Amino acid sequence: MKDLNKMFKPESVAIIGASSTSGKVGHIIVDNLINDGFKGEIYPVNPKGGEILGKTAYASIKDIPKTVDLAIITIPSVFVNDTVRDCGEVGVKNIVVITAGFKEVGEEGAKLEAELTKLGEEYGINIIGPNSLGITDSHTPLNGSFSQMMTPKGNIAFISQSGAMMVAIIDWSITSGIGFSKVISLGNKAGVNEIELLKYLSEDDETAVIICYLESISEDEDFIRTMREVAIKKPIIILKSGSSSAGAEAASSHTGALAGSDLAFDTAFKQSGIIRVGTMAELFDLGLAFSKAPLPKGDHVAIITNAGGGGVLTVDAMEKAGLKLVQFDDETKAKLKECIPDEGSVNNPIDVLGDAPVDRYKKSLDIVLKDEQVDSLIIMVCPTASADPDGIANVILEERHKFSKPIIVVNMGGPSFEDANNALRANDVPTYVFPETAVTALEAMTRFARLEDRSYDDVIEKVSDVDKNAVRAIFDKVTSAGRDTLLGSEAYAVAEAYRISAAPIRLSKSAEEAAELAEEMEFPVVLKIASDKILHKSDIGGVKVGITNSNEAKKAYNEIIANAKKAHPDIIPDGVEVQKMMDSGEEVIVGMIKDKQFGPMIAFGMGGIYVNLIEDVSFNLARGLSSEEIEKQIESTKVSKLLEGYRGEAPCDIDEVKEAIKRVARLTLDFPEISELDINPIFVYEKGSSALDIKIKL
Amino acid sequence: MKDLNKMFKPESVAIIGASSTSGKVGHIIVDNLINDGFKGEIYPVNPKGGEILGKTAYASIKDIPKTVDLAIITIPSVFVNDTVRDCGEVGVKNIVVITAGFKEVGEEGAKLEAELTKLGEEYGINIIGPNSLGITDSHTPLNGSFSQMMTPKGNIAFISQSGAMMVAIIDWSITSGIGFSKVISLGNKAGVNEIELLKYLSEDDETAVIICYLESISEDEDFIRTMREVAIKKPIIILKSGSSSAGAEAASSHTGALAGSDLAFDTAFKQSGIIRVGTMAELFDLGLAFSKAPLPKGDHVAIITNAGGGGVLTVDAMEKAGLKLVQFDDETKAKLKECIPDEGSVNNPIDVLGDAPVDRYKKSLDIVLKDEQVDSLIIMVCPTASADPDGIANVILEERHKFSKPIIVVNMGGPSFEDANNALRANDVPTYVFPETAVTALEAMTRFARLEDRSYDDVIEKVSDVDKNAVRAIFDKVTSAGRDTLLGSEAYAVAEAYRISAAPIRLSKSAEEAAELAEEMEFPVVLKIASDKILHKSDIGGVKVGITNSNEAKKAYNEIIANAKKAHPDIIPDGVEVQKMMDSGEEVIVGMIKDKQFGPMIAFGMGGIYVNLIEDVSFNLARGLSSEEIEKQIESTKVSKLLEGYRGEAPCDIDEVKEAIKRVARLTLDFPEISELDINPIFVYEKGSSALDIKIKL
Repeated sequence: MKDLNKMFKPESVAIIGASSTSGKVGHIIVDNLINDGFKGEIYPVNPKGGEILGKTAYASIKDIPKTVDLAIITIPSVFVNDTVRDCGEVGVKNIVVITAGFKEVGEEGAKLEAELTKLGEEYGINIIGPNSLGITDSHTPLNGSFSQMMTPKGNIAFISQSGAMMVAIIDWSITSGIGFSKVISLGNKAGVNEIELLKYLSEDDETAVIICYLESISEDEDFIRTMREVAIKKPIIILKSGSSSAGAEAASSHTGALAGSDLAFDTAFKQSGIIRVGTMAELFDLGLAFSKAPLPKGDHVAIITNAGGGGVLTVDAMEKAGLKLVQFDDETKAKLKECIPDEGSVNNPIDVLGDAPVDRYKKSLDIVLKDEQVDSLIIMVCPTASADPDGIANVILEERHKFSKPIIVVNMGGPSFEDANNALRANDVPTYVFPETAVTALEAMTRFARLEDRSYDDVIEKVSDVDKNAVRAIFDKVTSAGRDTLLGSEAYAVAEAYRISAAPIRLSKSAEEAAELAEEMEFPVVLKIASDKILHKSDIGGVKVGITNSNEAKKAYNEIIANAKKAHPDIIPDGVEVQKMMDSGEEVIVGMIKDKQFGPMIAFGMGGIYVNLIEDVSFNLARGLSSEEIEKQIESTKVSKLLEGYRGEAPCDIDEVKEAIKRVARLTLDFPEISELDINPIFVYEKGSSALDIKIKL
Repeated sequence: MKDLNKMFKPESVAIIGASSTSGKVGHIIVDNLINDGFKGEIYPVNPKGGEILGKTAYASIKDIPKTVDLAIITIPSVFVNDTVRDCGEVGVKNIVVITAGFKEVGEEGAKLEAELTKLGEEYGINIIGPNSLGITDSHTPLNGSFSQMMTPKGNIAFISQSGAMMVAIIDWSITSGIGFSKVISLGNKAGVNEIELLKYLSEDDETAVIICYLESISEDEDFIRTMREVAIKKPIIILKSGSSSAGAEAASSHTGALAGSDLAFDTAFKQSGIIRVGTMAELFDLGLAFSKAPLPKGDHVAIITNAGGGGVLTVDAMEKAGLKLVQFDDETKAKLKECIPDEGSVNNPIDVLGDAPVDRYKKSLDIVLKDEQVDSLIIMVCPTASADPDGIANVILEERHKFSKPIIVVNMGGPSFEDANNALRANDVPTYVFPETAVTALEAMTRFARLEDRSYDDVIEKVSDVDKNAVRAIFDKVTSAGRDTLLGSEAYAVAEAYRISAAPIRLSKSAEEAAELAEEMEFPVVLKIASDKILHKSDIGGVKVGITNSNEAKKAYNEIIANAKKAHPDIIPDGVEVQKMMDSGEEVIVGMIKDKQFGPMIAFGMGGIYVNLIEDVSFNLARGLSSEEIEKQIESTKVSKLLEGYRGEAPCDIDEVKEAIKRVARLTLDFPEISELDINPIFVYEKGSSALDIKIKL
């Protein structure tokens, strides 16, 4: 892990490109450092020397008499790399490059940036940027950015790949009363990327939750495994833009970053325990909850409200989010009855009525929090004539220290709640205006709390009874034959080498051989013309099914060859393939699509000819895949209900499906040259399974 | 339509239950009327007489010398009805009953409320409430509520079924700068309900958009037809709570209103052109857009942004919402190139760059709005160092009058945009903080604008070639036999009477008759035991398929009867049904479920034994159903792709499917006693179709 401590807690900062001209970036940064209370040494660097904002300016970083912990560079791009080299020479270990004009402006800039990356590695310098807006740390305090506003102090770390989005957020946070520990403008990620920052921030005591706006994810072979370790320590919430196809285009033209397919991101985030959000509002709504409240122990929620309608809306949102409404036992209900009038409700959601005084809230709150069934609590206040928002806020602040359960407050209104919201948020109780937001936040917290129970058994790594050499030999043969698609018999041999149950297919070169092979694998069989060049095999009479004896097999062979010759006189077929006919079973598909960034993605779902119509498919990335994830993948499809035995039918051999998924994952990880793989259908039986049609493309 | 004009624009208001004690509801309302500027006569009514807040109090409504246009009642529930009678006697035509303690408190209250409803009808009085928080009209101005705050003046009408939610919203609107024309607390809807209010408000010049928080929808046989007429005149946005099963429970216990199933509400709203939202935030986000901006002519959107990231997020949201990004032609691009630097983007989204001065926004804005391809525009501003939010706001305000296209502004931040947001909103330009919200609003506007193109042909009413009497006779026979489920042969006869293509089924009472019937309908046939009491017919040997001649038919008859006797000696079967075996076709289902509130709902989707697993089904309410809606219903399923001819297969007879839907709709509307109907499967052929299994329950 990179040591970024002095990046955010430097004892001295040099601003290379410091300026005495007000309005210039090099001026604003010096000004921000001073005005936002940085306590260490500030060294402006400017060839002209002199004094800038009362600080002695040095002509070069080399002239500064003491060690510099952090250098912030704002000089024109063409001078940046020389300056970085100078920094390296005098032992500067942390640099933020504000300067733009690198990868984002084209080839010339990309070259400069590559050199910058190399210099960083050479000298062991942590480089943030270029094209960064800078960094801030409200605890140091350090405003090493050219944002004119410092964020309020807090425990949310914010990483942004877009500078403009970062300033927007800082601006917005002022109104919303959200505090930040660190704000980091990533820029082009020539040195430190978001993965390294996430690792560092997961160990940072001043940070409780990390929120990110990202347009791309940095390359990391082992993204999922890396992130799993980080994401379990601290909630990581990511808004990843470019989810639409059009959006992905805009992202790549904008940042020059390689945008992976969105499905792969979704899957990678899910598998690593990262919380992905879909909107900017959600990013901050969730950040707020995680930064303030303790985690719930389970998914059972109690609601206290002074308006029935609000309770119903909360329950609606909870059902959509998959949270559960606590059913109170008689004891709790009896206690609640003592403090709530008959017209109210002692069933969840608890309706304390519009005329509820503070005391009624207090008593209900206490009873509910004491109930061991209750994992978390949502309190709603509508500004009725009798409501006392400040009094209720005080009660919440008193009560919540007695119990380590999250309390989310919904103060439905505006000015009536200004003081209450400030008091609650300042004292670590999250508050929202609308119930749906509270539920969204609580659901994410509940989900995060469950991460601890996950087990990662690295089951794919453990698949060892495979014959790599056999597959290697087949692939070599295919490529040396100038093909990129395997014949059925070759694909079957690959499946055999990886112990994927499949219906035998063998290639015959003569009618006699066809009959022999058929005899060997037992009748009935199917004969098919073998050629990667003939696509519609059935249409040209290239397929004969239901062959039950040797004579039929020989006859079929000759007919198929004759039919192929007639239809495609120019194509020399590889022979005729003989495949054993299998009993039909439940049809599933196991496939693999390759993601540029995350590697093989394994698909599982309902098989058959309507697979693209029914779209009953679920995905997992192969790398780091666990048994638990495979189980969930299967369970999330509709076809799993058929496999389990739908409407009284006998259940199918689901273990066989798991094996198929594991072995396809192992195969496609072992052989990155496989670009596409489709097994459709696999017949799954009560006992065993059989892959019917295996397509492998290199 | 009820004349509610004097309800909201009274020249005189009596407050019955007016009080001189500060803090009492009867005091607050008089105070609100006076302080919020009501210009007409104010008559406090209190048995003690005297003076209240400087106004002469009358002992009874009967003592007031002039006509009273509106009476607001706050006296205890037991006195309300007598007072309403008095009001009726002296010609008061509009009453708001604030008093609670009616239907919502149980049987006794429900009785009072029923009497209140009757009095209203008797005297022709419009009654809002009881259990209402009152009404406000910011244009009159009239604050006839006991909310302490008057909403800002505007053109959004707000109807709320929950009083507490109403005050919450009023409170919140103060901060958000949203203005209202009228705010109406519905209460228990003993007199005027939301449907009547929607009709009235759709004609109200001071109202541009109507937003509603509703917990139930009032009974109206012809809800869809009524609402279609209203919803096309003015956007109606509804947040209907109780969408969850648990939520529906809470709603019914809270309001005593009958909550229909949520699917039916969804369908009813969709079919009538009502915009349904899922959250409170959305209710107001959409209200704001509709109240400010003109409607778009189409779904092509242009985006101008000073931050690439914001553009990408907008495009992501647009793709999800189904809006289209304009592809600029060369002319527009050339013009844009003249004012945007090379590092920016003249492709949509237009990136004017973080350093964009006001002038660059102005020029881009002008070019884009002139482009005829552009139906609407989203402008994003991030508070970069160079951004001038106020300047940009001015430019927008200048430009937007030149074009009748919606301009939605996303000012991403907080304090930096305070003035700009105020200026824009005050001058009818909607502004949001986050791009996703802007897109949600724009999508709803685009959808609403398309309502005009809808055609409602009342196609179900036009189905006339049906034999009602035949069906009536069958149903009578079934019920007089003490059954509630039709035999297959009876269901077939019903289908025949309504000209629904089906495989013939006839009931035979002897082996000879079975053979004759089979002969008549042509072999092959299936024979099945006829009895509504024998459920698993196959298991007991009660079904024989593939009967190809008379002898087989006779034999099968006798065997079936024998098997049935053996398995169920106590049941006397109705005979044996003979059904013609049909060629198999594409399998679809057409069914009907009955909604308590909206009547028959017609289901269409993929048929077969996995219908509940695949869940490829779409619904429409039968009443008012149009040809266009039937087409959309079919198109929205996956099975429609099969019907259209999937992967080169011959297309099926979709007209037959439409006929089946129409005729099932007609049948279930004609016979409300049908509680359930399922036709699964219907085989659809290249030409024609055949219903295989028809289940009808009364």
